[in-house]
Amino acid sequence: MMAQSRKIGLVGLPYDANSSFMPGPRLAPARIREALHSTSWNLTTERGVDLGACGWTDHGDLRLEEMTATDARDAIEAKIAEIIDRGGSVMALGGDHSVSFPSIKAHAERYPGLNVLHLDAHPDLYHSLLDNPLSHASPFARAMETGLVKRLVQVGIRTLNAHQTAQAEKFGVEIVTMADFGADTRIAFDGPVYLSLDLDVLDPAFAPGVSHFEPGGLSSREVIRIIHGFKGKLVGADVVELNPYRDPIGMTAAVAGKMVKELMGRMTEDGALQATAAAGLPETGRNQA
Amino acid sequence: MMAQSRKIGLVGLPYDANSSFMPGPRLAPARIREALHSTSWNLTTERGVDLGACGWTDHGDLRLEEMTATDARDAIEAKIAEIIDRGGSVMALGGDHSVSFPSIKAHAERYPGLNVLHLDAHPDLYHSLLDNPLSHASPFARAMETGLVKRLVQVGIRTLNAHQTAQAEKFGVEIVTMADFGADTRIAFDGPVYLSLDLDVLDPAFAPGVSHFEPGGLSSREVIRIIHGFKGKLVGADVVELNPYRDPIGMTAAVAGKMVKELMGRMTEDGALQATAAAGLPETGRNQA
Amino acid sequence: MMAQSRKIGLVGLPYDANSSFMPGPRLAPARIREALHSTSWNLTTERGVDLGACGWTDHGDLRLEEMTATDARDAIEAKIAEIIDRGGSVMALGGDHSVSFPSIKAHAERYPGLNVLHLDAHPDLYHSLLDNPLSHASPFARAMETGLVKRLVQVGIRTLNAHQTAQAEKFGVEIVTMADFGADTRIAFDGPVYLSLDLDVLDPAFAPGVSHFEPGGLSSREVIRIIHGFKGKLVGADVVELNPYRDPIGMTAAVAGKMVKELMGRMTEDGALQATAAAGLPETGRNQA
Amino acid sequence: MMAQSRKIGLVGLPYDANSSFMPGPRLAPARIREALHSTSWNLTTERGVDLGACGWTDHGDLRLEEMTATDARDAIEAKIAEIIDRGGSVMALGGDHSVSFPSIKAHAERYPGLNVLHLDAHPDLYHSLLDNPLSHASPFARAMETGLVKRLVQVGIRTLNAHQTAQAEKFGVEIVTMADFGADTRIAFDGPVYLSLDLDVLDPAFAPGVSHFEPGGLSSREVIRIIHGFKGKLVGADVVELNPYRDPIGMTAAVAGKMVKELMGRMTEDGALQATAAAGLPETGRNQA
Amino acid sequence: MMAQSRKIGLVGLPYDANSSFMPGPRLAPARIREALHSTSWNLTTERGVDLGACGWTDHGDLRLEEMTATDARDAIEAKIAEIIDRGGSVMALGGDHSVSFPSIKAHAERYPGLNVLHLDAHPDLYHSLLDNPLSHASPFARAMETGLVKRLVQVGIRTLNAHQTAQAEKFGVEIVTMADFGADTRIAFDGPVYLSLDLDVLDPAFAPGVSHFEPGGLSSREVIRIIHGFKGKLVGADVVELNPYRDPIGMTAAVAGKMVKELMGRMTEDGALQATAAAGLPETGRNQA
Amino acid sequence: MMAQSRKIGLVGLPYDANSSFMPGPRLAPARIREALHSTSWNLTTERGVDLGACGWTDHGDLRLEEMTATDARDAIEAKIAEIIDRGGSVMALGGDHSVSFPSIKAHAERYPGLNVLHLDAHPDLYHSLLDNPLSHASPFARAMETGLVKRLVQVGIRTLNAHQTAQAEKFGVEIVTMADFGADTRIAFDGPVYLSLDLDVLDPAFAPGVSHFEPGGLSSREVIRIIHGFKGKLVGADVVELNPYRDPIGMTAAVAGKMVKELMGRMTEDGALQATAAAGLPETGRNQA
Repeated sequence: MMAQSRKIGLVGLPYDANSSFMPGPRLAPARIREALHSTSWNLTTERGVDLGACGWTDHGDLRLEEMTATDARDAIEAKIAEIIDRGGSVMALGGDHSVSFPSIKAHAERYPGLNVLHLDAHPDLYHSLLDNPLSHASPFARAMETGLVKRLVQVGIRTLNAHQTAQAEKFGVEIVTMADFGADTRIAFDGPVYLSLDLDVLDPAFAPGVSHFEPGGLSSREVIRIIHGFKGKLVGADVVELNPYRDPIGMTAAVAGKMVKELMGRMTEDGALQATAAAGLPETGRNQA
Repeated sequence: MMAQSRKIGLVGLPYDANSSFMPGPRLAPARIREALHSTSWNLTTERGVDLGACGWTDHGDLRLEEMTATDARDAIEAKIAEIIDRGGSVMALGGDHSVSFPSIKAHAERYPGLNVLHLDAHPDLYHSLLDNPLSHASPFARAMETGLVKRLVQVGIRTLNAHQTAQAEKFGVEIVTMADFGADTRIAFDGPVYLSLDLDVLDPAFAPGVSHFEPGGLSSREVIRIIHGFKGKLVGADVVELNPYRDPIGMTAAVAGKMVKELMGRMTEDGALQATAAAGLPETGRNQA
Repeated sequence: MMAQSRKIGLVGLPYDANSSFMPGPRLAPARIREALHSTSWNLTTERGVDLGACGWTDHGDLRLEEMTATDARDAIEAKIAEIIDRGGSVMALGGDHSVSFPSIKAHAERYPGLNVLHLDAHPDLYHSLLDNPLSHASPFARAMETGLVKRLVQVGIRTLNAHQTAQAEKFGVEIVTMADFGADTRIAFDGPVYLSLDLDVLDPAFAPGVSHFEPGGLSSREVIRIIHGFKGKLVGADVVELNPYRDPIGMTAAVAGKMVKELMGRMTEDGALQATAAAGLPETGRNQA
Repeated sequence: MMAQSRKIGLVGLPYDANSSFMPGPRLAPARIREALHSTSWNLTTERGVDLGACGWTDHGDLRLEEMTATDARDAIEAKIAEIIDRGGSVMALGGDHSVSFPSIKAHAERYPGLNVLHLDAHPDLYHSLLDNPLSHASPFARAMETGLVKRLVQVGIRTLNAHQTAQAEKFGVEIVTMADFGADTRIAFDGPVYLSLDLDVLDPAFAPGVSHFEPGGLSSREVIRIIHGFKGKLVGADVVELNPYRDPIGMTAAVAGKMVKELMGRMTEDGALQATAAAGLPETGRNQA
Repeated sequence: MMAQSRKIGLVGLPYDANSSFMPGPRLAPARIREALHSTSWNLTTERGVDLGACGWTDHGDLRLEEMTATDARDAIEAKIAEIIDRGGSVMALGGDHSVSFPSIKAHAERYPGLNVLHLDAHPDLYHSLLDNPLSHASPFARAMETGLVKRLVQVGIRTLNAHQTAQAEKFGVEIVTMADFGADTRIAFDGPVYLSLDLDVLDPAFAPGVSHFEPGGLSSREVIRIIHGFKGKLVGADVVELNPYRDPIGMTAAVAGKMVKELMGRMTEDGALQATAAAGLPETGRNQA
Repeated sequence: MMAQSRKIGLVGLPYDANSSFMPGPRLAPARIREALHSTSWNLTTERGVDLGACGWTDHGDLRLEEMTATDARDAIEAKIAEIIDRGGSVMALGGDHSVSFPSIKAHAERYPGLNVLHLDAHPDLYHSLLDNPLSHASPFARAMETGLVKRLVQVGIRTLNAHQTAQAEKFGVEIVTMADFGADTRIAFDGPVYLSLDLDVLDPAFAPGVSHFEPGGLSSREVIRIIHGFKGKLVGADVVELNPYRDPIGMTAAVAGKMVKELMGRMTEDGALQATAAAGLPETGRNQA
């Protein structure tokens, strides 16, 4: 269904009205772009993809500030759908985690058999939080309710309580907790994959610029290894929950920018591999990182 | 000797007059409680113990500010003894590391054959520092001199000098230095265990909010693995040396709060396991984390 | 060729006019000395060398502030040569990475068959940056052009672009990227080794006080393991690119100070081992860390 | 009506659910107490009142965290009323500014002819904000609607828009904007005065630890001069809107603590003057600061 | 000559390659816009102009990053000229102070008899700095050399050395140093005025987010008083030298945003007054602030 | 008695063992020198004295770290005496305030009729603090007990308690509290003056980098006005109590450096005026700032 060489479409989703604890993520897209364009690094990914040459289209930021939760959800879904329908691969910049539901929905409706790889300290499976079913604690409950997601695999989880455990069982979510995660963890999908990266999956040492400190998380290297190492085809991604109010020296924005670079590189590789068959990098190469 | 289902008793020990280098830990108990009660997380531990349901008793803070080192030591010992004698399991919040000696002494007198698991960058075995035998550099010399501690195992040490090496040999202390520590490190005790967690056992990347930066330490995940992974029965614990003056965004307080949560969870499990025999989690389960 | 018990000579090289992005490293030597002399730790290394007893000579800081790039290069080379010629082993404190070229040149001319172990996020192999062939992005291109370096091994690299890859191939540089680095990485040399430590080889979590954030780097423990674990004889070293403007609480200065301590310890051990033959620590001991 | 020597009653109101922009003030009472009890200063006010000797009663913190806006309002009003009815003078620690309405109401019902002196960057006269009539932008609209406040004088205002100007006219509020404020500003009341101090009346240079930066405000000295200089009898006060998330080094908490000290000193003086007639400090003395 | 109701044109000039000491101001326009659009305040100025209703046109940022000093100068001049020629009043956001020369030149060529009011800690009159005649230390030397500036009045200066004093005399610059500045300082022009605000005219207490700390400066209130108080007609303005690397909590960006608001308000008033003759605010009113 | 053109002698006194609350000032001399030599400013004072041309002698830092309070006192007194006896004017950099007593003593024994101008938030007149008569809270009690100080004038005081008030009366200290200080405050001496500047006389807004926050202090401009405005002849000075642990971005070090510059400028002017009679700046000029 998809064209073979899709252009990456970057889009900012500056919305945090669904955050239960602390605002800030609405300011994140500007900071991530600032990091991405910094002259302090170059645009070649760790696997050698030169994004400066490959390029991407920046669709700017949606104007979500004044919207209700419902309107914001609809506007995001429409925009993501538009980018995909015009042949783009989406790299979305949150905003809080509530932006992932409409993005996943738009992808799932266009990529049959979509898998979701969700990196997070929290399962975000609450049925509802403070009477808000669209809160940033619930996007994956909403996503699973669409019935369009083939598999949801969550990695890095370390805050499961009884309600969220029940929700995970109800929806058949596969969870790799931090207690279980290790050097031998393997993640593999058949078909298209959407990756949702909540920066708090990282230990606060690596990403202090988030609203919720949950110590005991992944290192930046481990996240990079997951990005390049999982089996499957990456068709869309988001990076969410950067909170500039907690990021005085821009270190977490740099982490976000790095992950965006590596995600765009992987999307480029996955598109290229499909187009050029076996001539590209060996499939196994990607899983050894 | 102990009742089978003990209630956890949290107590703050805001004392830092025995710190040789920098004040601050006297402000720590309030900050750790603030983290513990933060609405930014829930109270279920990584092993599924819901502390919100199990609960704990908060004994507040001892009023130690005006006391001499000797009086503070005696007041702490009396309070810890009182909590144990009334059927509680102690979760103590320092303060600097000098508070651990009276806490260990009170435990050792009540738990025959007490083992001590000590996580720290420093062995804290000085015979005396700046003529103060109760300084925060000496609590484990004092503890071993009581003759009541069966084994003292120190993990994470990375500042051994000749004097402290001699002291360790004299007292038969077992030391796992950071250079030796690895994924295959196993820690096992027979009988009751008191765990003393100096936050500077963590690398400053994970816990910058301490008075003494000693790079090359454990990650938060490694500490959590130790808490849930050692063999033995956890009967009491302290978390010490948080310095709020070095913790501008509260990240280290969040680490302290997380460790307090996991320690209280382990104490709850250990009490429950003893009471319900083989019906609970398998013993081995705890050692695989 | 070298005398068997060389005295370590510490020297500060406060120069950052060759930095492309942000000044700061010129202030670093004073901050590293401040950390080194802090009463918050002792001077015994992790392998038991008491630097307080062994001692070192502090040659102070070169006055480089007003110099052109060429003059600074010459002044550094002359000073380093002088320290070696008087029987000292050099422990240099940058400054930005441009100071390493004259230091390596002076060493290579005095230690035939010199190997260079270079820890860095960046290969620093640019032929020239912004028309400055002496910039902090080029020292290893210059060093290789001397023809005096036997092997250049780079560890921790994670920003290779096409130009730098071509340069690495041209000079026969051996690169261990972060993607390749692991617990089983072995580094071994025959003969003398100069170690150049750019603090940004560390993940920004461990060393935020640098000009260029490049997430996904080594931990402090991994760097210490490399310092004590590589096979070969350490004859000189530098620690560069600390940026005090990015180090508000001195955490990165503490990391720099720790690495300087361990490097001076290793140099002391390597000198002692040569002098006392097999009586010292077993060769293998050093490779097990 | 009031007893002549009232005891000061300190009470914490840790509520910020009515904040439109950023949470944090719920953490403030603990930080202000920490500053108040710091050994880095003494407890004698600038006018020589020794609060260490005079003392005050600390009523602790109300448990407001889980309450709705309406319940919190009622709980605050009940507690403030109880303190006054038992003969105390209230020194309340916010919390966001929404806590001032129930406090003023309780005072106005007990002190006939109550005047309110309100120091703030914002008039807080919104009829409603985001459909919340109890928000922290509206307490003075609510207070004026009770009909019990004789005069409301606002000092330091610098964000008047058309709606708030209309509200001020409707309620007869007297406003001294920052543009009008100067060394010759005189503030005088007949009868009892309640002083509500929003810390953002201070310029962010003096009090950065607030949710809303509004540059161009008062200095700490100017606020102290107002506290000691206005004519009238101070019977109750609050200090609100400290945001610890914006106060990494505790400087704003120290400002809050200082103002609390000076306010408690003034309340003590005003009570003492009434009791001992002309024997105390001359009335004019207070107005010359 | 000018149309009577000009629309304000905001434009970002993200250039700092001419900074001698520290980069950063190239990131400033994004941060000032972020502050300007913050929901933490409203858009009514202190003199009651509702900018939300009056509006302004945002021309975005010039893409100057890759340009040489000469090209950047020309691009800025062309853009500023274009905005004026299309009937706009310029509100420019630096960038370092080098951006002011082309902006002033474009204004001076279009507003005969242009006066310049320059608020700064430094006179910025160097003939050349480090061989760069377009450096951020020289814009006012360049501006005066055009012969098009009627009067240059500098306020807040506190770093005059012999060379700059000579330059000031040569160009007939009128300087009000900080030592001379006081409550009775009066600033008055005939005809059009361009105001250039270097944020370091403020004391670092009020604006720490600048590259050069020069203690002893103006308060935010004093700058606001100057903006609204000088006699003359404001036709264009810039706010420069915000350094986000020195602005961890965004306090200085808030100061910049506030000044931009008040400057746009004054420009609106000055345009409106001209259009509506005596019906507006009395001329004297503006000088009483 | 003194030679007419004395050379300024800068000396660092890095001692803080007499601090009751928090260490840090021992690190201050290095930071003040760093600020003084920063290329971000020039070396011409606000009154036009070019210190770059006039120069000063830097005597380095005394090695006080390991000394007892008594030994440190004696070493400081000896060094200060030596500088004066060799014809120098002392500019001393603390260290905590305990260093001022030996410095004042050495001056008073050499300048008959010495006056002391003391700028501070605290009177530092405690008879003893925590049994330490040499603590940083007592230097002016010790100084007055020598009987050699003609007048002690304290400016900026805002923490007088009963004990210190009694001490001030006993010693005849003249105190200008912050409540009394204003634009019309005049300070005048006959004969030689020693100025001791505790940075906490400044409001924490201007100088956050101190151990004791005491809001409501002087502005940097007001301190500069005092330095240049008092009547008398400045013969020696110290700047104390900078705490680098509280100065993450070096703003307070910049304030300290600025004050050191202006103090050295005033000392130079006072020496020059005496030497060249009426040819210099008019005496009155200095009092109008």
